[in-house]
Amino acid sequence: MKIVIIGAGNIATHLAKALQAKNVQIAQVWSYHYNNALTLAKQVNAQAIDSLNEIDQQADVCLIAVKDDAISEIAEQIKDFKGLIAHTSGAVNMEVLNGIAEHYGVFYPLQTFSKDKELSFVDIPLCLEANNEIALQTLKHLAAKLSTHSVEVNSEKRKILHLAAVFACNFTNHLYALANEVLKFNELDFAILRPLINETAAKVQHALPLAVQTGPAIRNDEQTLKKHEELLVQQPQLLEIYKTLSNSIKKTR
Amino acid sequence: MKIVIIGAGNIATHLAKALQAKNVQIAQVWSYHYNNALTLAKQVNAQAIDSLNEIDQQADVCLIAVKDDAISEIAEQIKDFKGLIAHTSGAVNMEVLNGIAEHYGVFYPLQTFSKDKELSFVDIPLCLEANNEIALQTLKHLAAKLSTHSVEVNSEKRKILHLAAVFACNFTNHLYALANEVLKFNELDFAILRPLINETAAKVQHALPLAVQTGPAIRNDEQTLKKHEELLVQQPQLLEIYKTLSNSIKKTR
Repeated sequence: MKIVIIGAGNIATHLAKALQAKNVQIAQVWSYHYNNALTLAKQVNAQAIDSLNEIDQQADVCLIAVKDDAISEIAEQIKDFKGLIAHTSGAVNMEVLNGIAEHYGVFYPLQTFSKDKELSFVDIPLCLEANNEIALQTLKHLAAKLSTHSVEVNSEKRKILHLAAVFACNFTNHLYALANEVLKFNELDFAILRPLINETAAKVQHALPLAVQTGPAIRNDEQTLKKHEELLVQQPQLLEIYKTLSNSIKKTR
Repeated sequence: MKIVIIGAGNIATHLAKALQAKNVQIAQVWSYHYNNALTLAKQVNAQAIDSLNEIDQQADVCLIAVKDDAISEIAEQIKDFKGLIAHTSGAVNMEVLNGIAEHYGVFYPLQTFSKDKELSFVDIPLCLEANNEIALQTLKHLAAKLSTHSVEVNSEKRKILHLAAVFACNFTNHLYALANEVLKFNELDFAILRPLINETAAKVQHALPLAVQTGPAIRNDEQTLKKHEELLVQQPQLLEIYKTLSNSIKKTR
């Protein structure tokens, strides 16, 4: 299999490297910034191209891994491509590729990717959608090289997964950041929270979160809640979030 | 060293088992409910007692691991105990033990403990506080048997750590629960989020959360934020939290 990667950001980079490591040939990399295309291309033994007209017509699959609002515009520019075209977004409808190619689909890895952090694809759920059986089989074949967890998900459900991921990942990371604000304000170091953060994630790997909720709000421990609110009196934004989330936890009792 | 454990809940159980595994003798276990004391005592080769008058005067340390508002009342009942008395709470002042014993202190493990989940103490930060040097050395000696991360923390700072832990653990787990609500409402399964939750925690093990924040709010991606809000229109409580946390993330840009 021969792949063209459109984009050189976090998802494009992680995908390209993971595929190449599984002996999938990355033929070309394109990016808005040719330098970024070059950087990624070098890492995966591919050719960097600076125009979408140069796309390799012999490639089997073109993966569009760019920011959401650029997908449709890029798709328009590769209408001549004969292979399968798939985007990697959680939030964009598959039908944005309708009329662009005969075989098209979505290849959405439900994971958070960072620039400098390696990660294994084996456990990452790959959410696949395709406009026909041939496209689906191609995407499944590609997914199977990377992960043991590929799953068919239509555009509607994929958007829900993306929304749930905002709660479980983006908002969660923000709470880590708020915890750090509390610590910094009192000259304490974030490092001391790391084992707790790890264990909090580990606890829900084999249980549902509702079953393992702890803390003053679920215990209805008004005394501790009040003390905490007093400690946050000089950080009104944190105080608001403390109250909002504590009240939300109480409703689950 | 010979220890008496007061309490038979999550912290008491995990502590007693971890200490016994390191060849620290657990002499006795007391609990409000004698049956619970018996259950734990059996597991750690100790004697269950049903009255605090029976406390072993030869023991070196008495650890009070009960809910916060019971600590002071229990301390009053063990005034005759000659050894060191320490409580294990994050939120309760050390001075609640003033006048109770000559040597007293706090032995607070900064971690979340669940009933059915084993965990290793090696990486758990043990926050120690003591009223004198002898008490401090005793607590340090005990801590060193369990963990490589013991740290001296006064009552004021300990309360801040406890508050930060609410953000990093209790609120975080609640966000996992809210993510599950989004999924359930749309007939999707929580399991698909587990690798993402793991990686979100893993990312901040070597970085600060502010540096690895991702998602539509930090990108100021108004289109996606709007789509997500539309998806939550039938879950107004989730919608409110979505808006509150997205706005809070935007302020960190």
